[in-house]
Amino acid sequence: MARLLYELAGADPERRFSPYSWRARLALAHKGLEAEAVPWRYSERGALLALSGQDKVPVLVDGDRVVADSWAIATYLEDAYPDRPSLLRGARNSIRFIAHWADAVLNASLVRLIVADIPPLLAEADRAYFRESRERRFGMPLKAVSADREVRLPAFRESLQPLGLTLRDWPYLGGEAPDYADYAVFGAFQWARCVSPFRLLDTEDPVHAWRERMLAAFDGLARRAPGFPC
Amino acid sequence: MARLLYELAGADPERRFSPYSWRARLALAHKGLEAEAVPWRYSERGALLALSGQDKVPVLVDGDRVVADSWAIATYLEDAYPDRPSLLRGARNSIRFIAHWADAVLNASLVRLIVADIPPLLAEADRAYFRESRERRFGMPLKAVSADREVRLPAFRESLQPLGLTLRDWPYLGGEAPDYADYAVFGAFQWARCVSPFRLLDTEDPVHAWRERMLAAFDGLARRAPGFPC
Repeated sequence: MARLLYELAGADPERRFSPYSWRARLALAHKGLEAEAVPWRYSERGALLALSGQDKVPVLVDGDRVVADSWAIATYLEDAYPDRPSLLRGARNSIRFIAHWADAVLNASLVRLIVADIPPLLAEADRAYFRESRERRFGMPLKAVSADREVRLPAFRESLQPLGLTLRDWPYLGGEAPDYADYAVFGAFQWARCVSPFRLLDTEDPVHAWRERMLAAFDGLARRAPGFPC
Repeated sequence: MARLLYELAGADPERRFSPYSWRARLALAHKGLEAEAVPWRYSERGALLALSGQDKVPVLVDGDRVVADSWAIATYLEDAYPDRPSLLRGARNSIRFIAHWADAVLNASLVRLIVADIPPLLAEADRAYFRESRERRFGMPLKAVSADREVRLPAFRESLQPLGLTLRDWPYLGGEAPDYADYAVFGAFQWARCVSPFRLLDTEDPVHAWRERMLAAFDGLARRAPGFPC
């Protein structure tokens, strides 16, 4: 049966920018598993709810299994395909922490730097929803959220310290080769690259060199996606 | 030959509050290894330099091996005692990330909440050094650094999100039992408990329940250390 991955898409259906979908996509690549990407927009929440019992992407459909949530997808793949290269390497708890850090720290500060760049890239039917829901969350117009991003940039870079420090010792968070920790964190940078021309990293930053390696992984899977130079 | 652990101490030599020494101490306990604790003060940097080639604790002396730096001690113990319970469980890179998070985020914000409570607990010969070096670092009197700690507390608690989120799924960062990730993070809380009466955590916080478990580990090793109620 078919393997499908529902992914958030912009107006250009190839512009899939959700950091969580990127985690799932790279996890599939790591396992060497093909999946047909299905572009999804916020306006299609009803259909997703009917399919998966909830309304957020990514959702993986693997034969008769429907799996929602990027972490659930990672553990599903690990357990369902134990003979493929390991994604979690027995370090499930620690990698889970890193994924939480990527959620609560990295993504939360990134969104304030790039959110205003997103609406023009969305399908027209999504723009009002996105703008209204995000403006409600931030309590101000999106342009205002991102207006001081140059000022916020040093604090953002400082928040990357745990990442930069780890990458002084290894080329990847997973060590000599990437694992799900890399994908969890890289998803955030790939999200930004897909939606915004804002330059997040100095080229001297070790995180920049790591991001280059991640962009090159799997024959340039991430670099080939529509995005901005970074 | 003897096994010795040099640990930073306060005026009361039993008050060993360095978060890094706590990591090493708990790592030894995890491995079931005895070590004689040697109280050390900042004023004794010359002797430590002669012993270890650098001037920071913890330093482990294990027979003819001298190992400085808490992470180096952890990996040394793991490699030198492979038949003892594993500290790193093959998840070396991920646990290293968590330790960096504890350094760069947790400890860095904790110090601003508790630093003014430290000098009275130091050996008299250490007080001027501690105060002067820290006041130079912060660019203000220590009392001023900690003066607004009630105001800083909500942001501190928010910075614990990756920890609290991980602990929703497991009783420890290591999963069903603690490992070095727990010790790396707990060292920070134990540091605070040892030097300051300031209440960091709400009793409803899952991090509070985890800290209670860590205080109880190894027959209450951490709870039995001189400190404040927390």
